[in-house]
Amino acid sequence: MSLLVTGSIGIDTVRTPFGYNKDCVGGSAIHFTMGAGLFTDVKFLGVVGEDCPFNLKELFGSRNVDLAGLEVRKGSKTFRWSGSYEGDMNSAHTEAVELNVLAEQPPQVPESYQNVGYVFLANTAPSLQMKLLDQLGSPSFVAADTMNLWITTAKEDLRELLDRIDMLIINEGEAKLLTGHRNLVTTAKAILEMGPRVVIIKKGEHGSMMMTAEGDCFLLPAYPTTVVIDPTGAGDSFAGGLMGYLASVGRVDVISLRNAMVYGTVVASYTIGDFSVYGIRNATRAMVDDRFDQLRKYTQF
Amino acid sequence: MSLLVTGSIGIDTVRTPFGYNKDCVGGSAIHFTMGAGLFTDVKFLGVVGEDCPFNLKELFGSRNVDLAGLEVRKGSKTFRWSGSYEGDMNSAHTEAVELNVLAEQPPQVPESYQNVGYVFLANTAPSLQMKLLDQLGSPSFVAADTMNLWITTAKEDLRELLDRIDMLIINEGEAKLLTGHRNLVTTAKAILEMGPRVVIIKKGEHGSMMMTAEGDCFLLPAYPTTVVIDPTGAGDSFAGGLMGYLASVGRVDVISLRNAMVYGTVVASYTIGDFSVYGIRNATRAMVDDRFDQLRKYTQF
Repeated sequence: MSLLVTGSIGIDTVRTPFGYNKDCVGGSAIHFTMGAGLFTDVKFLGVVGEDCPFNLKELFGSRNVDLAGLEVRKGSKTFRWSGSYEGDMNSAHTEAVELNVLAEQPPQVPESYQNVGYVFLANTAPSLQMKLLDQLGSPSFVAADTMNLWITTAKEDLRELLDRIDMLIINEGEAKLLTGHRNLVTTAKAILEMGPRVVIIKKGEHGSMMMTAEGDCFLLPAYPTTVVIDPTGAGDSFAGGLMGYLASVGRVDVISLRNAMVYGTVVASYTIGDFSVYGIRNATRAMVDDRFDQLRKYTQF
Repeated sequence: MSLLVTGSIGIDTVRTPFGYNKDCVGGSAIHFTMGAGLFTDVKFLGVVGEDCPFNLKELFGSRNVDLAGLEVRKGSKTFRWSGSYEGDMNSAHTEAVELNVLAEQPPQVPESYQNVGYVFLANTAPSLQMKLLDQLGSPSFVAADTMNLWITTAKEDLRELLDRIDMLIINEGEAKLLTGHRNLVTTAKAILEMGPRVVIIKKGEHGSMMMTAEGDCFLLPAYPTTVVIDPTGAGDSFAGGLMGYLASVGRVDVISLRNAMVYGTVVASYTIGDFSVYGIRNATRAMVDDRFDQLRKYTQF
C-alpha cells in the first residue's frame, strides 16, 4: 500500500567525536524516506526555501520517491540545524536552529496524495500534524513522532493528536515525560490509554519496545554495530524502515509489527554508520535482510 | 555438577523511592545463592562476625545449600552496607560501608569443597579472588564479577585474574572503564582478549549482552516487570540464576549459555520485586520457568 511521509528537510551541521560535517542534508522526512524507500514507494511532503542546495531526486537515487509534494518556496529559507554529540553519543546537543520555512505555512497536499494508505507524521507541532492529517482523507494506518517541546508546550494538542493516530513512535525520555511514569512498561501502557493502539518506545543503543492495545509486548535490542559515526536521523530512519515494511506487506498484525520493528532497527544501524545519509544511501534491501537475519541469530534462545 | 560461590554476607540498610529497609540480609553470596539454589545445590563460602543476626539455614529454606564453608568469626563484626536509589533506580548511592570481617583473612575452604565443578567468585579484591581460587583444585568452569574500585586500584591483579577465569560478568560502565572503549561490542571483544572465553555485560533495565571467544553474540532485554522495589542484589542473583542453571545442566555450550543468561535475567526480575531477598525467596523453579517462557514470547520474531 502507498506510504506518505511529512516532515522536515534540513541543512544540518553536525560534529561528533568522529568528525565535522557542514551543511549536509538532514531532516526527519529525508531520513525517514531513505529508510522507507528500501521497502516501498514513498509520497514525500515537505517544504524548503529557494536556498535549498540539495537535489532530492538525485539524493533518493533508485528509491521510488514521489516528489509532487515537495514545495520550493520563493522568498523563504530552508530549515537549518546545528548540533553535536559527545562521549557515548546518546543525546544530541543542539547548537543552533533556524526554523525558517518551517515557521511558515505547511506545504500544500497534492491531489495525487489523497487516499494514501499509510501515513507518517514526523515530529512537528501537533496542531500542524493534525492540519496535515485533515487533508489526507481516511488513511488506514497513521503513525506519528513527537518531542519534549510539544509535550511541555502543546500537551492538549498532543493529546488530541494521540486520539487520532494508530501508532506513536517516541523516545524513552519523552515517553516518560509525557506520562509522568518511570517504569517503561507502565509508561507504554499509559500511552496506549491515550489513544494509539500501538506504541513503540525507542531507547537508542539499548533497543526498543513495542506494546499494543491487544496486549502484545515485544522487546528488541539494537543491532550491535561497532561503527557509530553520527546518530542524527537514527530515530527517523527507524520509523522509515518500520513504516516502509508495514506498507510493503499491507497489514498491521502482531507478526508484521514485530518484523517491522526489526527492519527499523536494522535500517537505523546503517544510518548511524556515517554522517548525514551517507550510511543508509548505499544500503540495499539485501543488506538490510542480511542484518535482519543476523539480529534474529543474536536474539533467539 | 557442583557449584561453589564465595562472596560477601552483609547487613544492608537500603532506601528506595518505595521505602526504607534497615539491617536486612544482603551481600553478593547471599543474593547469588538465592538465585542459584533454584537450580542446583550450592556450596557456600563466606565469613560473618559474631554479631550476625541472620540464620542462613532458615533463610535459604528449601534450597539445598551446604553451609560447611560459612565461618562465624569470634571477635569480628559482619560487613555492613547502607545505600539508596533515586529516580529510575539505575545506580546505587553508597552512604556507608563497614568492611569489618571482609578486611580480615578470607574464610577457610573446607576439604569437602575441593574438586567442585563450577565456581563463582563474587566481587572482591582480585588478589583475594585468586587466593580463593588457589584453594579450589581444578574447577571446570570459573566465573567472576568485579567492580570500578579494583579496575582503578588493582588493575594488574585483575588482569592476572582474567587470565585464570572462564567467564567475566560485569556491568556496562565497569566494562567500559576496564577497556577504555565506548562501543559495547568493541568493549566485549577487548575483554575476551584479556583471557576469559565468555564475557557477559549487564546493562540493568536495558538487559545484557554475551560474547564468546568462539564468536557467539547474544543480546537479551531485561524481563519487563512493572514491580521494581529495590535493585540491590540484581546483578548477583543474575549471576546466581545463570551459574545455577549451567551447573544444573553440566555443560557450557552456546545454547546452555544463552538459556543460562535468560534464567539469570528472570531470577533478577524476582529479586528486584521486593527489598532484600523477600522478592526471590518465595520464587520457585516453576515461577522462573514461567517468566523464561514469557521472555521468549516477548523477544521472538
